[in-house]
Amino acid sequence: MINFASDNVTSASPEVLQAVIDANKTAPRMPYGNDPYTANIEAQLSELFETEVRALLVGTGTAANALALASLTPPWGAIYCHEQAHIQTSECAAPEFYTGGAKLVPLPGTNGKLAPEVLCKAIDRSDSVHHVQPSALSLTQATEAGTIYRPEEVAALARIAAEAGLKVHMDGARFANAVAAAGCSAAEMTWKAGVDVLSFGGTKNGCLGAEAIIYFKAELAENAARQRKRGGHLFSKMRLLTAQFEGYLAEGAWLRRAAHANAMAKRLAAGIGGVQGVELLFPVESNQLFPRFPAGVAHRLNEEGFLFYPEMIDGASRLVTAWSTTEEEVDQFVMAVRRVLEG
Amino acid sequence: MINFASDNVTSASPEVLQAVIDANKTAPRMPYGNDPYTANIEAQLSELFETEVRALLVGTGTAANALALASLTPPWGAIYCHEQAHIQTSECAAPEFYTGGAKLVPLPGTNGKLAPEVLCKAIDRSDSVHHVQPSALSLTQATEAGTIYRPEEVAALARIAAEAGLKVHMDGARFANAVAAAGCSAAEMTWKAGVDVLSFGGTKNGCLGAEAIIYFKAELAENAARQRKRGGHLFSKMRLLTAQFEGYLAEGAWLRRAAHANAMAKRLAAGIGGVQGVELLFPVESNQLFPRFPAGVAHRLNEEGFLFYPEMIDGASRLVTAWSTTEEEVDQFVMAVRRVLEG
Amino acid sequence: MINFASDNVTSASPEVLQAVIDANKTAPRMPYGNDPYTANIEAQLSELFETEVRALLVGTGTAANALALASLTPPWGAIYCHEQAHIQTSECAAPEFYTGGAKLVPLPGTNGKLAPEVLCKAIDRSDSVHHVQPSALSLTQATEAGTIYRPEEVAALARIAAEAGLKVHMDGARFANAVAAAGCSAAEMTWKAGVDVLSFGGTKNGCLGAEAIIYFKAELAENAARQRKRGGHLFSKMRLLTAQFEGYLAEGAWLRRAAHANAMAKRLAAGIGGVQGVELLFPVESNQLFPRFPAGVAHRLNEEGFLFYPEMIDGASRLVTAWSTTEEEVDQFVMAVRRVLEG
Amino acid sequence: MINFASDNVTSASPEVLQAVIDANKTAPRMPYGNDPYTANIEAQLSELFETEVRALLVGTGTAANALALASLTPPWGAIYCHEQAHIQTSECAAPEFYTGGAKLVPLPGTNGKLAPEVLCKAIDRSDSVHHVQPSALSLTQATEAGTIYRPEEVAALARIAAEAGLKVHMDGARFANAVAAAGCSAAEMTWKAGVDVLSFGGTKNGCLGAEAIIYFKAELAENAARQRKRGGHLFSKMRLLTAQFEGYLAEGAWLRRAAHANAMAKRLAAGIGGVQGVELLFPVESNQLFPRFPAGVAHRLNEEGFLFYPEMIDGASRLVTAWSTTEEEVDQFVMAVRRVLEG
Repeated sequence: MINFASDNVTSASPEVLQAVIDANKTAPRMPYGNDPYTANIEAQLSELFETEVRALLVGTGTAANALALASLTPPWGAIYCHEQAHIQTSECAAPEFYTGGAKLVPLPGTNGKLAPEVLCKAIDRSDSVHHVQPSALSLTQATEAGTIYRPEEVAALARIAAEAGLKVHMDGARFANAVAAAGCSAAEMTWKAGVDVLSFGGTKNGCLGAEAIIYFKAELAENAARQRKRGGHLFSKMRLLTAQFEGYLAEGAWLRRAAHANAMAKRLAAGIGGVQGVELLFPVESNQLFPRFPAGVAHRLNEEGFLFYPEMIDGASRLVTAWSTTEEEVDQFVMAVRRVLEG
Repeated sequence: MINFASDNVTSASPEVLQAVIDANKTAPRMPYGNDPYTANIEAQLSELFETEVRALLVGTGTAANALALASLTPPWGAIYCHEQAHIQTSECAAPEFYTGGAKLVPLPGTNGKLAPEVLCKAIDRSDSVHHVQPSALSLTQATEAGTIYRPEEVAALARIAAEAGLKVHMDGARFANAVAAAGCSAAEMTWKAGVDVLSFGGTKNGCLGAEAIIYFKAELAENAARQRKRGGHLFSKMRLLTAQFEGYLAEGAWLRRAAHANAMAKRLAAGIGGVQGVELLFPVESNQLFPRFPAGVAHRLNEEGFLFYPEMIDGASRLVTAWSTTEEEVDQFVMAVRRVLEG
Repeated sequence: MINFASDNVTSASPEVLQAVIDANKTAPRMPYGNDPYTANIEAQLSELFETEVRALLVGTGTAANALALASLTPPWGAIYCHEQAHIQTSECAAPEFYTGGAKLVPLPGTNGKLAPEVLCKAIDRSDSVHHVQPSALSLTQATEAGTIYRPEEVAALARIAAEAGLKVHMDGARFANAVAAAGCSAAEMTWKAGVDVLSFGGTKNGCLGAEAIIYFKAELAENAARQRKRGGHLFSKMRLLTAQFEGYLAEGAWLRRAAHANAMAKRLAAGIGGVQGVELLFPVESNQLFPRFPAGVAHRLNEEGFLFYPEMIDGASRLVTAWSTTEEEVDQFVMAVRRVLEG
Repeated sequence: MINFASDNVTSASPEVLQAVIDANKTAPRMPYGNDPYTANIEAQLSELFETEVRALLVGTGTAANALALASLTPPWGAIYCHEQAHIQTSECAAPEFYTGGAKLVPLPGTNGKLAPEVLCKAIDRSDSVHHVQPSALSLTQATEAGTIYRPEEVAALARIAAEAGLKVHMDGARFANAVAAAGCSAAEMTWKAGVDVLSFGGTKNGCLGAEAIIYFKAELAENAARQRKRGGHLFSKMRLLTAQFEGYLAEGAWLRRAAHANAMAKRLAAGIGGVQGVELLFPVESNQLFPRFPAGVAHRLNEEGFLFYPEMIDGASRLVTAWSTTEEEVDQFVMAVRRVLEG
């Protein structure tokens, strides 16, 4: 079976699994992050981001996003985001839970992206006690449409946010894919462009279950450790979580794996994009693509053993490639599409 | 270095790690528990508990406890527990967070255990709108003092609770140790004695990071899946969490490993209990013991490379044995105590 | 100064104030509603609504709405409402606070009203654990646009809600105005049309500060008293709150006062509607009207001493009449508009 | 019927009621505190407290306490208080609700008062992420035992709190009684002794329903207005709440009324204290007294029409005097006690 349903259908990558196996050999180690692995991970991330960061590891992307947002907004705050943002559509009100009841303000935007003028107009500048207090902007990178914000686009949005007193969160569940696609540095994509807190995803790109919350301003992390504990996200055998991220970062695996996934998406797009009757809904910039097939085709491909979500949005299906996707899988799918559509 | 600081300083046990490695080979698999491993785990747990249970896996004990309690009490509820209970002392208000603000009512009790008459007297039967609503009893098993409730003791407390309309939670972070110590079945220790929801610990006893919330009444689990997701505790690569529990349950590893830890504690108690000047604060019934050494001795042992929390409670130190503790480690410690105290 | 800024700029009506003065003479009385006045108010409200209701009094409309919604949705629930609904725009996330973090889903709709097809399409029927759980529909009656839902319109929306498992809340801050406008009974406007809980406004229509939460199904009120206390909304001298509602209900004052306010709005609409250059944005059905004046006119009228919110929505100003508005005030305003516009 | 059940069984005092009646004549006035009355109340309170204060009015004591505490502690904070404190025993977890889940730490203390050494020992100085963060001390003034802290006693406790980084709240539901009893100034009892936020009670001492939250440090009030609105405690006809406090403060009514209540308690104590078989449980320092009668006597007095809570604590009954208690009522009660006990 060939599975393009999501990048979280994958296994852990060999380098990440091996890092866990190795770390497991080193017991006993003091728990809750008081181990040599975890002591070192902030330094590694600081090097990657070319600035001193605070970092906390958690096991899921929803935890990372919700905790990150909780460091940026009071319970009576407003968080501006794209109406298709994962935090708005797919986290069962975890952001509301962790922030103590803040309000997400969903905004429209083509290709999954917020436009500066839309954000600028949406921000409530009334300072009315009857209104929630504008507190944060959250950008999804790569977006739910598979597109990416380029660093200068992030900067333009972050500037508007900062001028209105908002902090900026980046939901980087697919951060690696976005950086690989943009060809910029991790620093350029984040704090240099005005991002205050990043959810740096690992799980979809090779970890078993590990995400890093990266705070680019130390004061934002002040209560982070207690908030993580209170949420039940402080792992006692923390070094096994840390080891995942070490394996993920080592020798640039995170970026290399993401670049491969992106390349597979490009190959997929090139392969099916040329087929008569297939239309791609959004530009293919990272590792997701949204082809619109003629009626019935998506379901037929599903039946033939190609797993993906058919007709998910505006009649378009979603296909996601991953670190483990092979050229053969891509080519088999392309051939199947051709066979079905071209006979 | 010999480490008796806690049972969470250990690594994952071989059988658990192997199960994860094996499950990791089977990708791609649908995420969020929609995989064959997870589909099967409730059946395995139902067999173990000799009744049909609902079960949800999470990564930490605090998450398990907080989610379990959130299924038993409204935000305006009262949860009765021992004043030394982990939920009261060591979870940074996670129970308050997940329940939406319920109040823990800490009660005294010798040897870490609640006595029926203390509970009976403490329960508020006023039905006053000014008071929080009595909603749950939480028992720690094994207790923070290393003692255990025998099934008939659980039943006596649960009966009082039920008569007052309370549901019963068991914090079984060391459930395996308690069952091994009592020599009863998992069923006898829980639902047969009146327990409604169990936090079944895995992490301290061989898992990387996996705990099961076991609901003995299906209606209590009604909202559990959404609550878990909302808390950020639904893992996308869930099969890797499930695999840990499979490895943990297979061939009774959970119980065998705990029995070993208990035996090591007995050996430790026998070894140092006979030394002049050493007093054991509580009966040694599971895998924790609390020796009171003459002044300065605990710190001297620490300096000699034996890690444990010195003079933690009433002048007594805490030592915890685990699945990986060896007879040699125990004997070395006993010899060191003898050497220091007997010269 | 003539003030059309809102109906809450008014004083308490004579009958309400007198009822408070009278109740104040009767002390001492047991507190927290254990007084003869409060014992009787549910019976009076049950008579008015022609069915047995449960009712709780609070001091503000925001408290009434937030508590009402908290009885209808879990923290992981979704509440569907108009995008201009007071609960969405003007309560500083009180609904999120009282529900423990539920998500409001704002929907568009002409003339401040939700259309059945919009609601029907918006309701999430996926039952996905990643999504918030559809739990409640909230209708504002009269709407923020001054229009009203007729009983059959309420019924059509409530039917869709009920079929999807949603409960129905009516924010009746201006319920009296809506009932007076529709010419129906309080029962026809609420439970007979499918409403489960009503915020029955008193403050804008003659009370000092009193709103009733009316539960048409007893089970929805089960936890209401504790939720009110927990929110700090249980008044110790409750009889003084109850007395307000007694004065409000006695001899149909609530309806008569609202009918007067509506009549003043009609008179205002008639008066300025005929003036060249003035356009009314929405149908004038209750006690609010939204005239669009030529540029500069609204501000000039403000400067002449007529208080109202100029150019509040789509260039239209908002004027609100109340129980205390006089024909003279209306006529003075109409004359001023004529003078300014017609010279 | 003579009612000593509580001081909230009383009516509003004439001066307060008249202030409301007068303010009601002045409509229309802009809502939500944007009226001349409310603009002036902070200045009046600043004069009374001899320093610039921020002040917010609400309708209930529970709201005042919960909002005050929410300005002092994060959701993961600890609030130290006496185990008999109203916030701990009688507010249905409102403090937990408003703080987002902070934990109250109840401490023992004779005569309803915390002792410095008890507080000093209780404060958790571990800075452990597993523990809630020590954040606030709350003192009840007058206490639930009817005793008072003298300014130097407040200062001693506040000093310990401040040294540990805690903020200090005073629950002054009966603040006037305490100040009258101590014979000090409002300033000496509060900020001069180290109090950061005061719940200044009005309702029990003559208001219809009005309490002021007094912030002695402006930064603590930064989010107070939004928190009040979010809690549903921002009254639209705010001037009617403000008017109550104006009437309460004018010509020292608040202090004079409280002094009278205290005097009536002294008279009551003197009258029944000399009766054979009657023992007063706590020193009578404000307007509450706790006589222990021989078995059956309290209920017999109840039956004879004297309302009070019989045998409420350690066999002692509670009697509360108020601004409206008369010498005749006191003397009748004393005579009844004599008649019953001395025959």
